[in-house]
Amino acid sequence: MSRMPLPGPLHVTALGNALVDVIARSDYDFVDSHELERGATVMVDLERVEAVYADLPPAQEISGGSAANTVAGLASFGASSAFIARVRDDQLGKVFTHDLRSLGVHFDVPAATAGPATGRCLVVVTPDAQRTQCTYLGVSSELGPDDVDPELIAAAQVTYLEGYLWDQPAAKEAIRKAAATARSIGRQVALTLSDPFCVDRHRDEFKHLVENDVDIVFANDDEICSLYEVSEFDEALDHVRRHCEIAALTRGPLGSVIVGPDEVINVPAEPVAAVVDTTGAGDQYAAGFLYGLTSGSELDVAGKLASLAAAEVISHLGARPEVSLRELAGDLLP
Amino acid sequence: MSRMPLPGPLHVTALGNALVDVIARSDYDFVDSHELERGATVMVDLERVEAVYADLPPAQEISGGSAANTVAGLASFGASSAFIARVRDDQLGKVFTHDLRSLGVHFDVPAATAGPATGRCLVVVTPDAQRTQCTYLGVSSELGPDDVDPELIAAAQVTYLEGYLWDQPAAKEAIRKAAATARSIGRQVALTLSDPFCVDRHRDEFKHLVENDVDIVFANDDEICSLYEVSEFDEALDHVRRHCEIAALTRGPLGSVIVGPDEVINVPAEPVAAVVDTTGAGDQYAAGFLYGLTSGSELDVAGKLASLAAAEVISHLGARPEVSLRELAGDLLP
Repeated sequence: MSRMPLPGPLHVTALGNALVDVIARSDYDFVDSHELERGATVMVDLERVEAVYADLPPAQEISGGSAANTVAGLASFGASSAFIARVRDDQLGKVFTHDLRSLGVHFDVPAATAGPATGRCLVVVTPDAQRTQCTYLGVSSELGPDDVDPELIAAAQVTYLEGYLWDQPAAKEAIRKAAATARSIGRQVALTLSDPFCVDRHRDEFKHLVENDVDIVFANDDEICSLYEVSEFDEALDHVRRHCEIAALTRGPLGSVIVGPDEVINVPAEPVAAVVDTTGAGDQYAAGFLYGLTSGSELDVAGKLASLAAAEVISHLGARPEVSLRELAGDLLP
Repeated sequence: MSRMPLPGPLHVTALGNALVDVIARSDYDFVDSHELERGATVMVDLERVEAVYADLPPAQEISGGSAANTVAGLASFGASSAFIARVRDDQLGKVFTHDLRSLGVHFDVPAATAGPATGRCLVVVTPDAQRTQCTYLGVSSELGPDDVDPELIAAAQVTYLEGYLWDQPAAKEAIRKAAATARSIGRQVALTLSDPFCVDRHRDEFKHLVENDVDIVFANDDEICSLYEVSEFDEALDHVRRHCEIAALTRGPLGSVIVGPDEVINVPAEPVAAVVDTTGAGDQYAAGFLYGLTSGSELDVAGKLASLAAAEVISHLGARPEVSLRELAGDLLP
């Protein structure tokens, strides 16, 4: 299997699902009639994703996947990064691969030549700009520890892990291997909790991870409250301060709160003329924050870069930036 | 081969290429370095489309194809229509089929189970909102007379033909069969000239078609000037008045000119706040015009519907309407 030459030093190596988003506008009647979770993500099998697709209005396809969106955002800031995930040798796999490589992201896990198709995520954007998702993982669910190239982990300042992966036993082992590899050589590990339902499914394991193996946690208010089984954000904040070095907690239009070793910083949300589609807001927030952190910014500046990236992505359909985040950030860059 | 039940009476049955557009923003350096024709469409083989794609920035996939875009626009006006084209049983073929059927368009040519892949069109949108295209027809080039179901032609008031098809010998026979079938039972035949380079390749045959087999011609100023080998639009107008019953000639921001049996009507362009991507302007113009014509509007009103549909589609990426053209048209509808 010929692999691409290893890149030089990296800002971030990420592990996640390789998905192509299939984005359509519809309403909550559609969401409810297909028993999807309003505003959240459900994992479905092939039969169910095809049944929902058959009823979906005309759609557009844009590469997605939570951690993949984050490395695309990092590339837009000018960072170098690598991505580890599974695609098949089909048309959607080629689309996914093209859309990362054309950004300069190192992505060379060989495409599977048999088994399930490349994963996809049906994204229903409702008139309130919220997105409800229905994901068929396909071959992405076959990611395992053998796909984790220790050289890519060693090359990166931060290894970024997608919580959604925790649903699959082999992917869980891949995460454990990546985190252990990174920490054994003094690299940082970041984790996004991904989804409140995902947290609910794996609460104890996620808590153990956050307390023992993770340096930087990303979560939104629902996710962090679910992790600690509390109803108020401030209560969750008390827990998180005791358990991890850095946490970046997003609160939608309320902005975000960054918890550092010695400080708690409130970052206002960047104003947006019109919110079109909130898909990818958390992914791009993570991109901005990780770019700041790995290029020497202070936490407050990293938070501003994060808010800026999130604001760009919610102003249009799709979960990846449409303009250069590097240009957008201008003087904020280190 | 199980076919879908034939629909009732149709406004339009269209023959065209089945393509998925792969849309990316870039600049004329990219266009020139890949030897594409600025603002036009070149037909390429698999090797070349893959070479251009490898260099293309991240893209989004949206179903396209000139005549397919027109039937999508007709559906958005509330018209019933059928489409005849070839896809393969691959992921892009499923995307193309889904995006038409979910609009209620009757599309039931069985997907090929062997041979080239579903066709695609790389669309490079430059900062001036122009589009330069590079089309790999794939299995679409295998459309032939056997695919033309006479019942679908008989069911439709107008049979609409895409000039691009003329590049393929078998598709040319399909066009001839469709036109002959329609005229033999007193139905109307419409043709779009598609592209000035396409006209240049087939001038004599297109002239013969327009003079003998076509009731309604769609062309932009470059195409109609190319057809009659004149440099001034007004000269082309003199020719066209003598040769066909109805012509709808578009002139970009100058609006359009409709030539009827007894009149020539100038239709102003509908104002657009910001032109984002001109892909599909002609296709949606044809949708509006054909909707008006087949639902009993006078030529001037059909022209207004046409301009309205064109204005909607150039205000966003992609060649199909994003909002209901029926709602947009409001009081203009018959």
